[in-house]
Amino acid sequence: MKALVYHGPGKRAWEDVPKPEIKDPTDAVVRVTAVTICGTDLHILKGDVPEVEPGRILGHEAVGVVEQVGASVTGVKPGDRVLISCITSCGRCEYCRVGSYGQCLGGGGWILGHTTDGVQAEYVRVPFADTSTHLLPDDVTDTAAVVLADILPTSYEVGVLNGRIKPADTVVVVGAGPIGLAAIQTAQLYSPGHIVAVDLAASRLDAANQFGADITATTAEEAQRVVGELTGGLGAHVAIEAVGVPETFELCTKLVRPGGHVANVGVHGKPATLHLESLWIRNVTITTGLVDTSSTPTLLRMVAAGRIDGERFITHRFALDEMEQAYEVFENAGDTGALKVVLTR
Amino acid sequence: MKALVYHGPGKRAWEDVPKPEIKDPTDAVVRVTAVTICGTDLHILKGDVPEVEPGRILGHEAVGVVEQVGASVTGVKPGDRVLISCITSCGRCEYCRVGSYGQCLGGGGWILGHTTDGVQAEYVRVPFADTSTHLLPDDVTDTAAVVLADILPTSYEVGVLNGRIKPADTVVVVGAGPIGLAAIQTAQLYSPGHIVAVDLAASRLDAANQFGADITATTAEEAQRVVGELTGGLGAHVAIEAVGVPETFELCTKLVRPGGHVANVGVHGKPATLHLESLWIRNVTITTGLVDTSSTPTLLRMVAAGRIDGERFITHRFALDEMEQAYEVFENAGDTGALKVVLTR
Repeated sequence: MKALVYHGPGKRAWEDVPKPEIKDPTDAVVRVTAVTICGTDLHILKGDVPEVEPGRILGHEAVGVVEQVGASVTGVKPGDRVLISCITSCGRCEYCRVGSYGQCLGGGGWILGHTTDGVQAEYVRVPFADTSTHLLPDDVTDTAAVVLADILPTSYEVGVLNGRIKPADTVVVVGAGPIGLAAIQTAQLYSPGHIVAVDLAASRLDAANQFGADITATTAEEAQRVVGELTGGLGAHVAIEAVGVPETFELCTKLVRPGGHVANVGVHGKPATLHLESLWIRNVTITTGLVDTSSTPTLLRMVAAGRIDGERFITHRFALDEMEQAYEVFENAGDTGALKVVLTR
Repeated sequence: MKALVYHGPGKRAWEDVPKPEIKDPTDAVVRVTAVTICGTDLHILKGDVPEVEPGRILGHEAVGVVEQVGASVTGVKPGDRVLISCITSCGRCEYCRVGSYGQCLGGGGWILGHTTDGVQAEYVRVPFADTSTHLLPDDVTDTAAVVLADILPTSYEVGVLNGRIKPADTVVVVGAGPIGLAAIQTAQLYSPGHIVAVDLAASRLDAANQFGADITATTAEEAQRVVGELTGGLGAHVAIEAVGVPETFELCTKLVRPGGHVANVGVHGKPATLHLESLWIRNVTITTGLVDTSSTPTLLRMVAAGRIDGERFITHRFALDEMEQAYEVFENAGDTGALKVVLTR
């Protein structure tokens, strides 16, 4: 079969590899029918995620059809159409038992396209298939479902739920890429009063407006001014960091009001400065997190009910064997305007 | 009357000042019968809290008897014995209406001994007396009640409640001064499995054991080792920072497990480094806070019921006019072993 293989920093190829087989009785092999590329894949290609070894098939966001299951799998069967969660869950460890699947100690967590072969392939072996896939209803298309593998639950759990958005809140989302846009979309489930989107790129702020932001800002100073104007100088109830650099994290801690929440969603490679000399007295809550995907069933129902449109994130569509072209378009999102690229067969 | 007056960094005097009078109809004037000194008062005397102006009477932890009330005060009357909360609350603003009295926008918050004259005096004017004092039952002594003005609610709200301690949790308290000890004491209300106390001073670790810590550590390395041993290498469920320097905050972020809470109680004068490059993926919650004193009625009932012994924090007792000696003993806690010093009349 063909798969997108990482060959060390800066090197990738869509090439022939052996088709995966059942190794453990809890495995399924899934024929991939829709797959996308994540910003995290680009981080891996830059060499930012050193635990990813050359030879690894990348990708952790896909939909497919179950082709084969191991002897102990009872929840899915060949022919079932499933969402493959970006988070694999053993379902048994201390963390899985409280729904913290992202921190799974039993061999799961974020493993696909990371420490085991991923989904940017014609077929993928899915460990712990019973607890790491979701059956898809007929009325949810592959391409609407594929954004449920990672970005929607990530933005919802790590941004909106960790941020504890409440009705009438002023919410600021720093970074209007796919994760920021998904945060803007899912924030609206909690009826905030205002959603302020902050990004350097006008095209992303246009998208933010379309996704539901009512105010935009292009600089830190402008963000502080507009949030101040909206809130009588108090600051935002919730600031969601969706970039992953120290400057945007620190901006969030400046934009938030006393008693407010900073929800970090961004993937960071460097430490930030935490200004405890001003924050100690301000009752601020800062959260970080890898997605657990415990919200995926909820979000899937919202997509099925038409309350969330998964398709709207998709700006570019390719055939599965156009993987190289899809990467090029996604890598040059600044020029191509790509949000999510999806490959189907 | 006599009062302890701040005269700029390093300078204080117990000296004659005018007796306070009712200024606003919501005021009470209270005759102080028990008062203590806070580590924050020492910070002020070092010049770390520049908004405190020379001429200010210090102190924000006291018990007394109401002598006079303004025209609109209906909750307390002359002769009532009251706890004066370290936090003044207008009761009306956006923050007070949700119990966030520490962030009061209506002229309250931490004002006593800070932006208005405090309680280290024979008499004090207490603004917003109805919402900033608590009637004391007869069976709670002045000296047991005085620790309810600040340290018990601070450690309980900003440490234990913000940290969301649950039964069987492994809790680490970094810093075993009065605030750390109060956190160790009130943490037990939520039945943690282990309480690890970390401090450089053996005498403080002895006190920590007496207050309920079952394990102690004197260095960061020892703390990491013992917490690791207790938790299968995962880390503490909750780490409470009760010192106020960058090193101890950063230690807390290393001691906490994925999914855990770092509750900062310490008063910080400098920024810390937040290692987002490792924390982004670990589902950590970090909280800061000034006490709201919304828990004071609860804690007062626990003291009245004998479940919390307020007196045990008090190591040294003085007459009110021995204020200078009390400061000297408290300033030299390393030699004197002082936890809380209390002055009565």
